[in-house]
Amino acid sequence: MTDHTVTFDTVHEPVAVKTGTLLSEAAQLAGVDLNQPCGGQGRCGRCALQITEGSVRRRSTIRLSEEDLDQGFALACQTVVEGDIRVSVPEQEKIERLLTTDRTAAEITVPKGYDSNLDQAIQAYPLTLTPPDMSDQTDDWSRLSTGLRQQAGIEEVQVSLPLLQRIGNILREGNWDVTAILDMGSGDNQDVHPRLIELLPGKELIPPPLWAAAIDIGTTTVTVWIVDLITGKVEAQTAQYNKQISRGEDVVSRIIFAGKDGGQENLRNLVLETINELLETACKRIKSDPALLPSQILKATIVGNSTMIHLALGISPEHIRMMPFTTTINQVPPLTAHELGLNIHPEGTVDCLPGVASYVGADITAGVLSAGVDDTEQVTLFMDVGTNGEIVLGSREWLVTCACSAGPAFEGAGVASGMRATKGAIEDIWINDANLEPTFRVIGKVKPRGICGSGLIALLAEMFLTGVIDKAGNFNDSSKTPRIRQGDHGWEYVICYGDDSSDGNDIVITHVDVDNLVRAKAAIYAGFSVLANSVGIPLDWVEQVLIGGSFGKYINVEKAIEIGLLPDLPWDKFQFLGNTAVRGAYLALLDRQARQKINEIASRMTYIELSADNTFYDAFMSALFLPHTDLSRFPSVESALTNKEIN
Amino acid sequence: MTDHTVTFDTVHEPVAVKTGTLLSEAAQLAGVDLNQPCGGQGRCGRCALQITEGSVRRRSTIRLSEEDLDQGFALACQTVVEGDIRVSVPEQEKIERLLTTDRTAAEITVPKGYDSNLDQAIQAYPLTLTPPDMSDQTDDWSRLSTGLRQQAGIEEVQVSLPLLQRIGNILREGNWDVTAILDMGSGDNQDVHPRLIELLPGKELIPPPLWAAAIDIGTTTVTVWIVDLITGKVEAQTAQYNKQISRGEDVVSRIIFAGKDGGQENLRNLVLETINELLETACKRIKSDPALLPSQILKATIVGNSTMIHLALGISPEHIRMMPFTTTINQVPPLTAHELGLNIHPEGTVDCLPGVASYVGADITAGVLSAGVDDTEQVTLFMDVGTNGEIVLGSREWLVTCACSAGPAFEGAGVASGMRATKGAIEDIWINDANLEPTFRVIGKVKPRGICGSGLIALLAEMFLTGVIDKAGNFNDSSKTPRIRQGDHGWEYVICYGDDSSDGNDIVITHVDVDNLVRAKAAIYAGFSVLANSVGIPLDWVEQVLIGGSFGKYINVEKAIEIGLLPDLPWDKFQFLGNTAVRGAYLALLDRQARQKINEIASRMTYIELSADNTFYDAFMSALFLPHTDLSRFPSVESALTNKEIN
Repeated sequence: MTDHTVTFDTVHEPVAVKTGTLLSEAAQLAGVDLNQPCGGQGRCGRCALQITEGSVRRRSTIRLSEEDLDQGFALACQTVVEGDIRVSVPEQEKIERLLTTDRTAAEITVPKGYDSNLDQAIQAYPLTLTPPDMSDQTDDWSRLSTGLRQQAGIEEVQVSLPLLQRIGNILREGNWDVTAILDMGSGDNQDVHPRLIELLPGKELIPPPLWAAAIDIGTTTVTVWIVDLITGKVEAQTAQYNKQISRGEDVVSRIIFAGKDGGQENLRNLVLETINELLETACKRIKSDPALLPSQILKATIVGNSTMIHLALGISPEHIRMMPFTTTINQVPPLTAHELGLNIHPEGTVDCLPGVASYVGADITAGVLSAGVDDTEQVTLFMDVGTNGEIVLGSREWLVTCACSAGPAFEGAGVASGMRATKGAIEDIWINDANLEPTFRVIGKVKPRGICGSGLIALLAEMFLTGVIDKAGNFNDSSKTPRIRQGDHGWEYVICYGDDSSDGNDIVITHVDVDNLVRAKAAIYAGFSVLANSVGIPLDWVEQVLIGGSFGKYINVEKAIEIGLLPDLPWDKFQFLGNTAVRGAYLALLDRQARQKINEIASRMTYIELSADNTFYDAFMSALFLPHTDLSRFPSVESALTNKEIN
Repeated sequence: MTDHTVTFDTVHEPVAVKTGTLLSEAAQLAGVDLNQPCGGQGRCGRCALQITEGSVRRRSTIRLSEEDLDQGFALACQTVVEGDIRVSVPEQEKIERLLTTDRTAAEITVPKGYDSNLDQAIQAYPLTLTPPDMSDQTDDWSRLSTGLRQQAGIEEVQVSLPLLQRIGNILREGNWDVTAILDMGSGDNQDVHPRLIELLPGKELIPPPLWAAAIDIGTTTVTVWIVDLITGKVEAQTAQYNKQISRGEDVVSRIIFAGKDGGQENLRNLVLETINELLETACKRIKSDPALLPSQILKATIVGNSTMIHLALGISPEHIRMMPFTTTINQVPPLTAHELGLNIHPEGTVDCLPGVASYVGADITAGVLSAGVDDTEQVTLFMDVGTNGEIVLGSREWLVTCACSAGPAFEGAGVASGMRATKGAIEDIWINDANLEPTFRVIGKVKPRGICGSGLIALLAEMFLTGVIDKAGNFNDSSKTPRIRQGDHGWEYVICYGDDSSDGNDIVITHVDVDNLVRAKAAIYAGFSVLANSVGIPLDWVEQVLIGGSFGKYINVEKAIEIGLLPDLPWDKFQFLGNTAVRGAYLALLDRQARQKINEIASRMTYIELSADNTFYDAFMSALFLPHTDLSRFPSVESALTNKEIN
């Protein structure tokens, strides 16, 4: 095999590669950090590079126009180096940092009657030990253990070697007055011994501050809350994009990326970096003197979907996406921060909350708890539509759950002008029924750059109601407006002409986009139907709909019903709860009973695997219309359409 | 402060140091590895270097002769750099590697009726798991746990994160047939869960080989036995000097060295290196195809004195040598090899057996078990005189113990011509009563270089019985031989003239040496007396004397009694048991009941701190004579002396 030289314009040194090397591998070798939202599958078109000299072989040119190809663009993940080349790296889509604005921060109420000494696991015990003398030469550890037994009633304490290495000095530094900080365990496993996390010299600070962190690893966004365990208050909230995003937008892309050489380790490092940065940021927000350090945080609970948890733990998620879709572990034993690589106190406990299945993870069990689904008498539909769509139907008596492979269309991925809900995203839109002219609202009040999830739902509903598209999603070509036109990819509707957009490009929605969105909403609605069927009740028996996740926070219920994404129930039955996952992680920190309940939720939830359910396909096909094949399921939409026809 | 240049003749690059730097620090900086048997206290004189250019300030010149000083010699640990100097590094005393000759290897009998399935903790379970399918998507870990519960009756298995990271692939590689290797725990702590050590794909090898190691960390010598847990057989025995020796010959010197900057970590690395090398060597001796690797060893038990255990664990031994002499921990919780840094299987259990006090460690509790002291009806005196002298008196009913700060005189340290029991050491000696000419036996049948412990005991006895010294250890100056003469350090006896020695120097024993030896034997005998006193029995009620440790193996009981080192009992009451410590570690590997017994031994042994015992000083002073002030305690010696006078 011959060596070729690949020279990137953004780095100094060229790299030498063998014939047949992927351009993306050469880029990695050269230290060029490419965004690969689809995980390198050649689906998203975001890793395009421009070949300025030499030739390459393109395995796929999907998402590249004729013009792109003429200019030498090639998808790095689908292009093979076959000679010496020079490559120009276009400016990549920047992954913006989420700010903790009112969009993510929430007012959290401490549970009523919260008692730090009774409810949570991290406890501090002041001890006065008898100093050793020639008539009592007991070893330090036995002396401390005896103190814990006699003064705090605690038997059989576990301790790690690194802490044992320090206790001799700490005991003497405190002149045999010390404060022992222990993790007392979950409270139900009587057979697990309490564990010493830290020993502090002296015992002036009683109780010393006891800090903990609730962490939600979302596919798109990672959220960290810092909790004062004494008061139970959330003292800081931070969120940031998951740094894994550049390696794939959805879980499937991440799993594919993890399967590549070094991919899994890379993803693990990225998510740990994300969390550790958030911990730093969050600690800095807390006003204390001296400043709070992440190493003072004594415990963390972690929630996330099963793929996120596997990746964070360094466990291969490979089998999650392969039939029969199994995880390696749903109920992770308690770990120490040191084992995991989390920058809190090295002996701090890390409690990964339990998941149910490959696509129903700890974010859902925690969400069910914090939404109170497991504790209500009302028939409740709980959904957490983020990058994935998980649904739970149930009450105090029963719980069924499923995951809809809706894809990330409602997060703006797989849609030509789609983008995340950041500055420049159209988040709501109206179309004038008479002239089909749109009016829209843009996040950050700037020129628009694209359209995010809530905007897409509104757009789909408006296009349907104004007749831009019909119930099958086909464009109405008897056009009253030049905004409906034939583009490179078939019919499209122009939301904003290039003159008014931030980058000079037209913002459009194409037939393909509409198709993707309809399929996504159909998958979710079919999920509702299958769950309701599985317990033999009609969907309109649902007494409340609780919507968690960032997705749910800004959508317009009316419009979501109009496209058939949400079931047609009175609007007052819908509640948006924000990030129910991190809130569940917070409750699990504060309350061992709540923690225990999450275990029970995980055990009693019946998981329905849609891909193995023979009623799902029919339900999905029926839902591939706007709002649905069976209009009687959407009486409010039916009557709106009838009124419109009458008018 | 000024910088000076220090140039060592054995290394290429000079080093720059500040005024006031110790020469030993400069040597370390330059990478010159010095022997410091006394730990850098300026006591042993072994770190002498020759200053060939420039001047230094000598804080102490102990052990250097006028001639040495004229030639520019200086003790590296006691000499301060005050200008640019050039240093010549003399060839250091080499620490020879012990070979596993008949001197250390022993025939070990497997305990009668040994049953690997019942007696020891490491168990292999073959499992056939149901493969997952779309109707059973249970996660891998639950599937494995269920298999263990249903097919092996094992509940609540603990597992580490690194092993969890691998199980998904192992299960599939074995096509859902696997062999789980577990540590079932000590058997008594019902509340500690079994722990998964390894999961192997397939289940052809039933039982698979289960390997373990028994490790004795001696101050001087480290011993490793490799044990086949299925048969119970010791398949390899290796021993080697503890690499810490160059940092101090005895525990006190090591503790002092540990207190220096980086000293503790250095000592930890040295002992782990020693053990890991021994594990490599031992595995290579075992004939198997494929070759046995240390990483296949699943468990290790470790014994050693408390200082050795602290150093191996990275715990400061500082307080062991400071009043009131406390350890940080006597009963170390089970560790994994990964935590400790031992190169066996990373998840392998490391069980450090329990010690009793600062100077009565796990080597003694294990020795008591393997010698059967805790299980005999006979009043038994057990001693393990290695670098330290620990004594146990007792039986099935009671056990008392103490540690004599005998010092390492009987290991050849602190004696001018003393050396360890290696090639060139005089190991036995006779003095002709008529002309006081000596005859001796040398290890390896070469020209002698010095005299080792057993030789020193014989020499002392012979000098006493032939009148070279009197009962107070004073030299008889009415000399019948030129071998008794005045040397640099007062009176001395020439054992071998330079013409016949290997290095051309006279081999002598000086008055100071005799004093050291008498003090050492007095400390040990006083220990016996105090123990017997403490339980109110005379020493001659002792029904058997069991002697463990390498020291005991070659000494002549008659001569040891003659100098008053051992109590005057009939010779058939003495038994030499070799390395009782490692044998105890071996028994603890094989038998959970034996392991439990060692815990009981550690708990029920009454430790008597000699330095706080007001009868010890008197007992010691009385024993500072040969054989003792009170000759009636040594009737056999008394009669020998009487016979001699009559003749």
